[in-house]
Amino acid sequence: MSAYVELEDHFRQVGHLQHIAAITGWDEAAMMPSGGGAARAEAMAALNTTIHRLVCDDRLQDWLADAAADQALNDWQRANLGEIQRAWSRARALPDDLVARLSSVSVRCEQAWRSLREANEWLSMQPLLEELLSLTREKAQRLGDLKGLAAYDALLDEYEPGLDSATVSGWFNELKSFLPDMVDKVIEKQSTRYVKMPTGPFRAEQQRTLGLKLMQTLGFDFDHGRLDVSHHPFCGGVPDDVRITTRFNEQNFLEGLMGVLHETGHAMYEQGLPQAWRNQPVGNALGMAVHESQSLLVEMQTCRSREFLTFAAPLMREAFGAREQDPTWSAENLYRLSTRVRRGLIRVDADELTYPLHVILRFELEQPLLEGSLTIADLPEAWDARMRALLARPTHDNHRDGVMQDVHWYAGLIGYFPTYTIGAMKAAQWFQSASDAIDDLPAQIAQGNFIPLMDWLRQNIHSQGRLHSAQALLAAATGSPLDPGVFRRHLEHRYLS
Amino acid sequence: MSAYVELEDHFRQVGHLQHIAAITGWDEAAMMPSGGGAARAEAMAALNTTIHRLVCDDRLQDWLADAAADQALNDWQRANLGEIQRAWSRARALPDDLVARLSSVSVRCEQAWRSLREANEWLSMQPLLEELLSLTREKAQRLGDLKGLAAYDALLDEYEPGLDSATVSGWFNELKSFLPDMVDKVIEKQSTRYVKMPTGPFRAEQQRTLGLKLMQTLGFDFDHGRLDVSHHPFCGGVPDDVRITTRFNEQNFLEGLMGVLHETGHAMYEQGLPQAWRNQPVGNALGMAVHESQSLLVEMQTCRSREFLTFAAPLMREAFGAREQDPTWSAENLYRLSTRVRRGLIRVDADELTYPLHVILRFELEQPLLEGSLTIADLPEAWDARMRALLARPTHDNHRDGVMQDVHWYAGLIGYFPTYTIGAMKAAQWFQSASDAIDDLPAQIAQGNFIPLMDWLRQNIHSQGRLHSAQALLAAATGSPLDPGVFRRHLEHRYLS
Repeated sequence: MSAYVELEDHFRQVGHLQHIAAITGWDEAAMMPSGGGAARAEAMAALNTTIHRLVCDDRLQDWLADAAADQALNDWQRANLGEIQRAWSRARALPDDLVARLSSVSVRCEQAWRSLREANEWLSMQPLLEELLSLTREKAQRLGDLKGLAAYDALLDEYEPGLDSATVSGWFNELKSFLPDMVDKVIEKQSTRYVKMPTGPFRAEQQRTLGLKLMQTLGFDFDHGRLDVSHHPFCGGVPDDVRITTRFNEQNFLEGLMGVLHETGHAMYEQGLPQAWRNQPVGNALGMAVHESQSLLVEMQTCRSREFLTFAAPLMREAFGAREQDPTWSAENLYRLSTRVRRGLIRVDADELTYPLHVILRFELEQPLLEGSLTIADLPEAWDARMRALLARPTHDNHRDGVMQDVHWYAGLIGYFPTYTIGAMKAAQWFQSASDAIDDLPAQIAQGNFIPLMDWLRQNIHSQGRLHSAQALLAAATGSPLDPGVFRRHLEHRYLS
Repeated sequence: MSAYVELEDHFRQVGHLQHIAAITGWDEAAMMPSGGGAARAEAMAALNTTIHRLVCDDRLQDWLADAAADQALNDWQRANLGEIQRAWSRARALPDDLVARLSSVSVRCEQAWRSLREANEWLSMQPLLEELLSLTREKAQRLGDLKGLAAYDALLDEYEPGLDSATVSGWFNELKSFLPDMVDKVIEKQSTRYVKMPTGPFRAEQQRTLGLKLMQTLGFDFDHGRLDVSHHPFCGGVPDDVRITTRFNEQNFLEGLMGVLHETGHAMYEQGLPQAWRNQPVGNALGMAVHESQSLLVEMQTCRSREFLTFAAPLMREAFGAREQDPTWSAENLYRLSTRVRRGLIRVDADELTYPLHVILRFELEQPLLEGSLTIADLPEAWDARMRALLARPTHDNHRDGVMQDVHWYAGLIGYFPTYTIGAMKAAQWFQSASDAIDDLPAQIAQGNFIPLMDWLRQNIHSQGRLHSAQALLAAATGSPLDPGVFRRHLEHRYLS
């Protein structure tokens, strides 16, 4: 057997165990009773350690060297080899013990966060977060040493390979240069128009039925996935069995529905990954920014459009037994609700325009937090100051809606937040290219025909796995590197024209 | 660190991965979309192989030898050491490759069975079953060589340590000596009394609510478990997170409800296992016959009694909005429905009296099947002949309700069926002892007070883990070895007095 084939066999086993970890992770968030948490944290740590040991296996050193000299490999195999090399050297940089502690502490910290956030108990949260941050810092430093990067950049690179904080700062500074003003203008512009939430309550079961119908219309394959409910919406599972979740607010059905559509974008990406490369690193999704671009392309670019809501309004009325004559159920009102801009405290509830400001705030805090120039004790004050500056909303003593609002830091995810807004910028750029390539895309969407759009995404993005870098993939399909100007023009067109 | 502590640490990791396997197994049956099956089969095989390798670890040889000489071990530790020794030598007898193929073929075979049974397609089922049987035979022979047992006995011993086919044959022959006659008499006796199913449909959501309420009343801890729906009811998960399932028939709510109560019996056992010995072999449940005795003690001995149905009838009426005056909802009618005896084709739908005959049939077929004196091609005819003899019901060409009705053989479980009826006999014996020990147990049950019964079970059975053998545990709590006469007297009292 060639060294390359040995590597493929070995990583197929890794892929299988990652499959198990993905399903168990979904279970933990969507199914597990809370009393199962402590035992689960230990079990997940054991599984993650097992995976880590496999990836670190001593035999890989020789296999990697031999495979690198193998002239018979095709492009996919060569890219797969590169991914395996990357995974191996990354894993070798992290000792077993660190991996086990990170897994167990992050699960425990996340579990504690769920109840402490509810109770606004920041002081009780601090020691666990401190412990997790210290482990995350150790991981970042070790990865930084390996990659020749600063600690924070090493984490960014985990979530979106090739990304660094200087580039992110450049993009984010461009956004900061116009977004606060634009938010002012849009709020002013929207203040005089009619907009009203249809009257609920909207039964969860009806919301679910509507969500399932729209997932189906978008092309979600229910033979290889399902929809459930969790505390925070997410997309988990594996390409052959994608698990998306949402939550249903009985007073506002658009929240849960947009969650479903967003996660459907993630799911379409997973389901469209190259079939021939299942359980190999090259068959996985590219970084999280590309992943987020797929969810935002579906949610923001496609489903919050006037065209989509023209198509969906009758389905919504049918789902909740509403009358067509009721003006709150008109496509135009539903569009206005879906594009309403308001300065709020909560990132996940934020609109398209204020969302990047929430992300920039987190980016500007987590970097000094990781580097140690900002302490956890000082975090609420720093958060409050930035919320006032960027969004004119104080959060003093309101930890639940301040530093404790997002799970990420409490799950050990530092360096992840920027991918949301980079994803939004990429989504605008992909969508523009898809619009150029597809005959009258807006009309197709208004008729509920998503096949041309999904075909384009499948061909240009999903089916490519990790064959190319995120940067090369975007340039190949859109003809240019990431350009925040495309995102800006999209926002101007939607909100100010 | 002492050799014994090394062993505990090592088996804690095994326990963690078994936790993961249990949750993923539950997911496969209760949650997974069918298209995810092929990938899942491979993933589960990889996990099972990983667990197998851990159990086989070379280092155990020395640790086991050193620990055996350790004079400081207490009774629990010594029993744990015995379980570890047993697990290790068992695993060493099975090559990695066999374990991986058994895992993958049994998952594929079970998945195929689900659709082929629906379609009554026995011919398409045969090759996969043949493949699985051949692997199971290899496993049985290897375990038999290790234990000095015949192949089939080696499998019996897997599901209930210490059980052998000669003993089982003795008990089953005793049952065969009186059951067919008794079935005749009871059917004759019941033929003239009033009994009528309340009129449905019974909405699944209402059935679920009722099931949850009765689980709670019996003492199920919802902070450490949940109830879901699956194709076949089962109890999965781990002691800290027990997953039970049922299925809801909208025409007959008693089916799903009795499924819930049965699985609750299993769950109470799991939740009551010794907290101090989580993730150690001695902390696991004893064999499957003891497990089944706990489910049958709750379902058959407790919940199909006149006393329980006196307590539960008002709750049932409330759940479905029925009128008290309706005679189909009287406690007496519900008791008659719950103890109605009929010769049927399906084991899982069978009543308490005919159920052992279904089990005996399978016991008498699977032994020659494993040994090779009965071929898979001849199985339907042999099944049909025995069904005619034991239950006077032909199954010719009706494979769906004949050889294909149960998942067990299609999941690689041979030697498992006898544990159902041994469990029924044990349940009768435990229950009699509990009745002797508890002040007016029937009255407690009629009032919905299950605390004394559950306390007795917890103390005498659940909390004992695998400290004693199944045989010793029964003798300690009931004062005698398994006595089929106790079961016979229970049946005579309930059905003929």
